[in-house]
Amino acid sequence: VGQKLVIAVRGDLRMSIGKTAAQVAHAAVIATLEAAGSPRLAAWLEAGQPKVVVRVLSLEALEAAMARAADAGVATSLVADAGRTELEAGTKTCCAFGPDTDAALEPVTGDLPLL
Amino acid sequence: VGQKLVIAVRGDLRMSIGKTAAQVAHAAVIATLEAAGSPRLAAWLEAGQPKVVVRVLSLEALEAAMARAADAGVATSLVADAGRTELEAGTKTCCAFGPDTDAALEPVTGDLPLL
Repeated sequence: VGQKLVIAVRGDLRMSIGKTAAQVAHAAVIATLEAAGSPRLAAWLEAGQPKVVVRVLSLEALEAAMARAADAGVATSLVADAGRTELEAGTKTCCAFGPDTDAALEPVTGDLPLL
Repeated sequence: VGQKLVIAVRGDLRMSIGKTAAQVAHAAVIATLEAAGSPRLAAWLEAGQPKVVVRVLSLEALEAAMARAADAGVATSLVADAGRTELEAGTKTCCAFGPDTDAALEPVTGDLPLL
């Protein structure tokens, strides 16, 4: 069974590459810490911790994906920026979904394009 | 005392934004797992897990930074790509330094420009 962590990033915020990478990393670290000790974390690490970075075009689209995750029982880790650079404090920049199986994630993030 | 995790990415590989973000996230997750249970991880998480993404222009420059880290006693987490997309398997794409104090990281990555 395939495992992955999907991170959806807001494309509408026009973050720099470095800022984008830092936000995605933040989401991945939070997801890892929140899944500590779980079988799904162990399975994902065993698989080489595959990550897929996808794009949403608004906060509303990010929240819609989070609502689908809640319905599907998929874990979410939302990042709110600290506001030190580029963005206002509290701006929701990205969200990690999982780590979980490909099958569990498909209805949640399967329609989102790669970043 | 300021805490951070610095991730240095190879700019010469011309990775896409999504690929870059996934590699940086990979480095950050490895660094977090390798620091599990340590005071330096706790201090960094307490500080809001600040991350700085910087650029090197060659594998040699990345390895030079890793040598400086070894001299300074700073932890490194090197990412070798799995080769599923864009790159050949085993390509060294980025490396995390720390998490550690700003002072410990300054001689290691202080001269590298932001990505």
